[in-house]
Amino acid sequence: MDADILSIGTEVACGAVVNTNAAWLSQKLIELGVTPRRQVTVADRLSDVREEIERSAASVGLLMITGGLGPTRDDPTREALAAALGQPLEPDEAAAERIRAFFREIGRPMSESNLRQALIPRGCRVLENLWGTAPGIRAELGRAVVYALPGVPREMREMFTRSVEADVRARGKGSAVAVRVLRTYGLGESVIGERLSNLMAADRNPSVGTQASEGLISVRIVGRGASPAEAKRLVDEDAAQVRTMLGDSVFGEGDEALDAAVGRLLAGVGRTVAVAESCTGGLIAKSLTDVPGSSAYFVRGYVVYSNESKVELLGVGPALIESHGAVSEQVAEAMAVGCRDRACSDYALSVTGIAGPSGGTPDKPVGLVYIGLADGTGCTVRRMTFGGHLDRQAIRDRACKTALDLLRRRLLS
Amino acid sequence: MDADILSIGTEVACGAVVNTNAAWLSQKLIELGVTPRRQVTVADRLSDVREEIERSAASVGLLMITGGLGPTRDDPTREALAAALGQPLEPDEAAAERIRAFFREIGRPMSESNLRQALIPRGCRVLENLWGTAPGIRAELGRAVVYALPGVPREMREMFTRSVEADVRARGKGSAVAVRVLRTYGLGESVIGERLSNLMAADRNPSVGTQASEGLISVRIVGRGASPAEAKRLVDEDAAQVRTMLGDSVFGEGDEALDAAVGRLLAGVGRTVAVAESCTGGLIAKSLTDVPGSSAYFVRGYVVYSNESKVELLGVGPALIESHGAVSEQVAEAMAVGCRDRACSDYALSVTGIAGPSGGTPDKPVGLVYIGLADGTGCTVRRMTFGGHLDRQAIRDRACKTALDLLRRRLLS
Repeated sequence: MDADILSIGTEVACGAVVNTNAAWLSQKLIELGVTPRRQVTVADRLSDVREEIERSAASVGLLMITGGLGPTRDDPTREALAAALGQPLEPDEAAAERIRAFFREIGRPMSESNLRQALIPRGCRVLENLWGTAPGIRAELGRAVVYALPGVPREMREMFTRSVEADVRARGKGSAVAVRVLRTYGLGESVIGERLSNLMAADRNPSVGTQASEGLISVRIVGRGASPAEAKRLVDEDAAQVRTMLGDSVFGEGDEALDAAVGRLLAGVGRTVAVAESCTGGLIAKSLTDVPGSSAYFVRGYVVYSNESKVELLGVGPALIESHGAVSEQVAEAMAVGCRDRACSDYALSVTGIAGPSGGTPDKPVGLVYIGLADGTGCTVRRMTFGGHLDRQAIRDRACKTALDLLRRRLLS
Repeated sequence: MDADILSIGTEVACGAVVNTNAAWLSQKLIELGVTPRRQVTVADRLSDVREEIERSAASVGLLMITGGLGPTRDDPTREALAAALGQPLEPDEAAAERIRAFFREIGRPMSESNLRQALIPRGCRVLENLWGTAPGIRAELGRAVVYALPGVPREMREMFTRSVEADVRARGKGSAVAVRVLRTYGLGESVIGERLSNLMAADRNPSVGTQASEGLISVRIVGRGASPAEAKRLVDEDAAQVRTMLGDSVFGEGDEALDAAVGRLLAGVGRTVAVAESCTGGLIAKSLTDVPGSSAYFVRGYVVYSNESKVELLGVGPALIESHGAVSEQVAEAMAVGCRDRACSDYALSVTGIAGPSGGTPDKPVGLVYIGLADGTGCTVRRMTFGGHLDRQAIRDRACKTALDLLRRRLLS
């Protein structure tokens, strides 16, 4: 079965927002055995939206629409879909009540315009939105099934997973598809490409590809078979080979983040960690506490941006800072050791560096970062140079990931 | 003049790559006075590409194509464009020679298939590619001008800037375009929609639209005029009206983040801030230090995830935690006051709450967050309930933004 993906929104059509919804939906459809044929984006203009709906419904079996379901006058999806169907819009009382309940719960007054979101073309099914006010709509137009989902990625993904996926899977049957994604940190994409070159040959089944994003390289394995079991077996065989070839650099699967992988290992052995951050400014603590249940192993964090706070909160010697500078191996070590002592944790991570864009010197350029890891056996410090091609956010991001990866490999060893 | 943007590539159509080219081109076209009407993405299938080219050429004045110009047989753009034009493909000797020179320069052998990239539909103009082997093509089809550019973003942007922009600007003349984006926090999208309903009427010039993203609402104003000065005047008038109608909820313009707006205000009055975070786990410190130069006003942060750390690091009374619970107005106040005392800062923000997904009770449900703001005059605490429709990440995000917004409004008053 073929599918079109239609994204509605002036902000996307004007380029103010990059369209991540279409990429996410395309990947999901492929996993469900559906072939994405076209992604189309149009602005909030009723006639354009209607034209695209009618064109897609005449040529594909599945049309996924995102966006244009908001409460304001410039949100055209409901009207366009109703016009294409030749049906009137009617208020759905259950949907209206959920919108009223939503506003009661968050304690904010509801404006009457919000009830526009409960208008549904006659004969269509309403899809409940657990995370927002815009309900989704399921319609049948010609030979196509049409789903209209919210444009907010979080709401769209939740609604797709809960209310759309099973239906699409049933329609996509015929060839089974299995997908596994292995997540790695520490090897470059070209090194991975060389090690996996046999698996990455064109027209091979499964197909194996790499994708780099913010320093992480994902290896994506997509296998097809006559049955789900066969597709899964092919993908599992490749995944085992990839794990052998990449070793400890594989930290997780699917969409597991590095912080979640570290948390899983810490929780597994019942150990705790504390962090002392200068240039990452709270990013490592934030990452570790992104994970539900992280209070089991995350004890506390110190954001010690100033020299005084390094001295006061961690007991770093003022003379040490004076003689080596705040960005130095010695200070990173004193931060990690002082942090572990004060927090009474099993491990402590420290980061001190120059995130830029200013503050660099010939000796200590922007991107220079020292990362300390203290445990019961002592402290190791790693010197990294992230400069040159990375900006402030990316330098902070890589420093955080390198620190987490240092702890991860220590926990594995 | 209207334009369509056509992206060619199986990797984009399958969602393995997010389409940033379309967003970039849309923004460029708007700046040049051209209205992007549709963004379309199709896989490397000749018939689909030809169909999209013919459809767009029949309805818009400008068609921008990216991708599908590679050396392999599955790169369909040259063939599809030639078929749509009804012209044969012919080798362009100058383009072929540049491809040979490219390979000589990087010292790698050239395969004969690379010369496919020098095939150009008869009567078209070749656009030189300074950063890769695929030349671009300029064609005229019906009433439309068609540009085919490489899919590699770096090559595409360079070629657009050097070989396309001036021509498009000349064609886009007659109408000049100006854009302003006002960023707000604290009002719901529907409330803003009602207050701005006159400005948001369909087919008005300027067009005014809203866009919600992670709790922030942006108001986008796009104006057209006979001259750049007229377009700017129209947009400025609307922006002034929007600011009047939304008041202090407007925190910045363009892509300014809330943390940067707070930093700008702090730096402007020479004040400092420290933070004490429980459920946000370092997110507020991380946000404030995202901003270059934040060391001028950000003093330090405490990530006090455990009760012990609240007591030890901030001096929160154990009896207070015992009697009211760690998530309470009293503890939020003690955290903020203790943080300000210890950090010797002008302001201190504190957050304690239940980010979930577990840990909620009927009395204190997931999403309950207390936010404290201490300054020389005392401490105020705000109680928020973000529960129900938000997940852990979103609850933490909204708690962080609400805290920053609380400080921002204090700084304005």
